[in-house]
Amino acid sequence: MPTFVVNFPGIDMDLYFSCSLTGGRQDQPVYAALVAHLERLGHCVLTAHLAAPSVMADDAGHSETAVYDRDTAWLRQSEAVIAEVSTPSHGVGYEIAYALERGKPVLCLAREGVRVSKMLTGLRAPGFEVGTYRTPTEALACMEAFLARC
Amino acid sequence: MPTFVVNFPGIDMDLYFSCSLTGGRQDQPVYAALVAHLERLGHCVLTAHLAAPSVMADDAGHSETAVYDRDTAWLRQSEAVIAEVSTPSHGVGYEIAYALERGKPVLCLAREGVRVSKMLTGLRAPGFEVGTYRTPTEALACMEAFLARC
Repeated sequence: MPTFVVNFPGIDMDLYFSCSLTGGRQDQPVYAALVAHLERLGHCVLTAHLAAPSVMADDAGHSETAVYDRDTAWLRQSEAVIAEVSTPSHGVGYEIAYALERGKPVLCLAREGVRVSKMLTGLRAPGFEVGTYRTPTEALACMEAFLARC
Repeated sequence: MPTFVVNFPGIDMDLYFSCSLTGGRQDQPVYAALVAHLERLGHCVLTAHLAAPSVMADDAGHSETAVYDRDTAWLRQSEAVIAEVSTPSHGVGYEIAYALERGKPVLCLAREGVRVSKMLTGLRAPGFEVGTYRTPTEALACMEAFLARC
């Protein structure tokens, strides 16, 4: 019997979710809601564990180089990056540049009212967007609209 | 009369100094000491104003895109980057990746004891170094040793 593979644009994408780790975890419940929503939409979130409360303990068993190599491999594999940028983070800033250099679409999401670096708000590149949200529901809508354009 | 131009390696370099702006300015006196020392050594610090107490007010008159375009032009012009990474910052993380992608040597300096992202401490690339310091004097020595290798 023949098998038919049907691709729906914007569905079942490999996504890289980026958020602050060492910089602060006060937004962890928001990270978890964003990742859960992406998974409900049928996407594969390669970095889903970063949104878990236990991520710092989970990653403590891995060497720094192993974490760097794993995360940059996931960035190269991903089809798009969603970065929560309300909490300053060297790692997130690094990942955004690394992804853009490789032509990946990147959405930065920030809570309305937080100050975001001009290196992000002033960046103009194909596929790069910065969105603000007042509620997690607004953030989910912003992600969906971004992924529909990818 | 013939003119002789003598180049001393590691002297009179165009340098990009990177530090936290929106992420926090509690280390501003350290930034100022590092930049003053680089200038005493005869280098041109393209971003010297970032170490001034008034930088946030000074840059407030520039659009986000103007700041992004200016800073990335300086990164491309620079011969090496020195980043103070004790305070998390999206901009600094972005600049480190942007510089490495263009083959610039990068030194990250952190106060001993602060947590630094594994995306930096786990990064292995030609010309990339992370150093820690207990006193500003140690940070200056670390910068000088790095620049001598550039």
